[in-house]
Amino acid sequence: MNVHSPADRKSEPDRKGFSRRTAIVTVSDRGARGERKDASGPVLEERLFEEGYQVCFKEVVPDEVEAVSSILKRLSDEEKMALILTTGGTGVAPRDVTPEATLAVLDRTVPGMGEAMRAASLTKTPHAMISRAVAGVRGMTLIVNLPGSPKGAVENLEVLLPALPHALDKIQGDPSECAAMIHEDVRGKDR
Amino acid sequence: MNVHSPADRKSEPDRKGFSRRTAIVTVSDRGARGERKDASGPVLEERLFEEGYQVCFKEVVPDEVEAVSSILKRLSDEEKMALILTTGGTGVAPRDVTPEATLAVLDRTVPGMGEAMRAASLTKTPHAMISRAVAGVRGMTLIVNLPGSPKGAVENLEVLLPALPHALDKIQGDPSECAAMIHEDVRGKDR
Amino acid sequence: MNVHSPADRKSEPDRKGFSRRTAIVTVSDRGARGERKDASGPVLEERLFEEGYQVCFKEVVPDEVEAVSSILKRLSDEEKMALILTTGGTGVAPRDVTPEATLAVLDRTVPGMGEAMRAASLTKTPHAMISRAVAGVRGMTLIVNLPGSPKGAVENLEVLLPALPHALDKIQGDPSECAAMIHEDVRGKDR
Repeated sequence: MNVHSPADRKSEPDRKGFSRRTAIVTVSDRGARGERKDASGPVLEERLFEEGYQVCFKEVVPDEVEAVSSILKRLSDEEKMALILTTGGTGVAPRDVTPEATLAVLDRTVPGMGEAMRAASLTKTPHAMISRAVAGVRGMTLIVNLPGSPKGAVENLEVLLPALPHALDKIQGDPSECAAMIHEDVRGKDR
Repeated sequence: MNVHSPADRKSEPDRKGFSRRTAIVTVSDRGARGERKDASGPVLEERLFEEGYQVCFKEVVPDEVEAVSSILKRLSDEEKMALILTTGGTGVAPRDVTPEATLAVLDRTVPGMGEAMRAASLTKTPHAMISRAVAGVRGMTLIVNLPGSPKGAVENLEVLLPALPHALDKIQGDPSECAAMIHEDVRGKDR
Repeated sequence: MNVHSPADRKSEPDRKGFSRRTAIVTVSDRGARGERKDASGPVLEERLFEEGYQVCFKEVVPDEVEAVSSILKRLSDEEKMALILTTGGTGVAPRDVTPEATLAVLDRTVPGMGEAMRAASLTKTPHAMISRAVAGVRGMTLIVNLPGSPKGAVENLEVLLPALPHALDKIQGDPSECAAMIHEDVRGKDR
């Protein structure tokens, strides 16, 4: 059992000094109107805390391109988040616009994250193919869309976790060689 | 043996009342000039009929961006199709422009469908990686590109079929929870 | 041991007469400044030579969108390459802009190549998901991004090799049927 309340939490500093400041943005019309409790945000926060990420911002916004894009810009440019995870609005319903709102603010896309999350989920359900989640970089911030359900959001986060520390370091300008790290990984596996 | 002619066919109505009106667009220069019989259209129609889809439109158009885009727009906006499947023009030959014509009319892309079809085909042939098929939503219509060969088209359709009913319902505004459905699926598998 | 120097090499002509003229573009700030020897270019050249590709151009350019786009345009439009492989600049570091520079000059993207390379690499390391490699067609030239490390570049090239001959033939206008070739492959596997 985790006895810390979010306010008590201090994340482990990254060993190389790179930021792990993280924001969770729940995209939900009903959540934003107060008609539904945000279930995915707290579950994601818990899991991220266990991994040493400092969740310093959580907000619920409606399924509106302008609302989602605005908060992503503010959290990247002003709040200097290292990582922003959205949850919700990635499906094909008429109001699902989180990917479009995200693409509108990304400098560079990272297509492999959406691919990897969908490929992993596809082993569990064919409905995984209609998740339209995207990921990418704005300035020094990595932004990734996760599905709206708590279960789906955490399952997808698990796919990302092994790649996140290196990704965040590189986005923030870590000059170490990717190749070296990847080779270490592979050697590690071969042992 | 199926003894129904297409004219006799009536599709099963979706249990929740959502449309299953389907169009098949064969994209082929030679087909459009009458130099080749459309082989993929009828094979797709047969398979879709078995699954309860009402194929109410079939047409052959040349490999021209404008021709393909126009028919996709008409079938979405005026004919109110729930699903449009194209077959042909997804490769890398100079005249293969179906993905570009499709992207030009989509409101929102669904990248996971192309990914899932290619991943499945890649287990059979490395040539699968040059299929440039895209999928996405225009208004309340799902549009998906399939390859041109009858065999390839049906194999790719098989990948989509388990995800289609839920996708079409959501696109048409079904307010039920994705999460619930997906959890049912997963529980179903666990049994 | 391969005793041929690159200057001695003559590639096997493609049996159907399609071009196999290949260029390798190493994208590296340090390489372009002469601070680091290009390790990936020679390794790729060696492997391509073994497969019968004529590597007739190798250059190192800095991680600048304009520099990368310019050379891709020149190698496609003026030097009439059949294939251009880039190596480097596909990650998420601030200077990694090879995918953006490539997308800027492509007429049509081939998303399945990036997907296939990442899916293969993902079986070795989770870091594969941050490779942002893209592929596509400009005129009659196939352009594919590979990672920067020699090991990663060659591993990704191996994924492409089985699909390349057919892809290059089709891009150059080979009128033979894709379907027939793919069916032959499948039958071949079934034997």
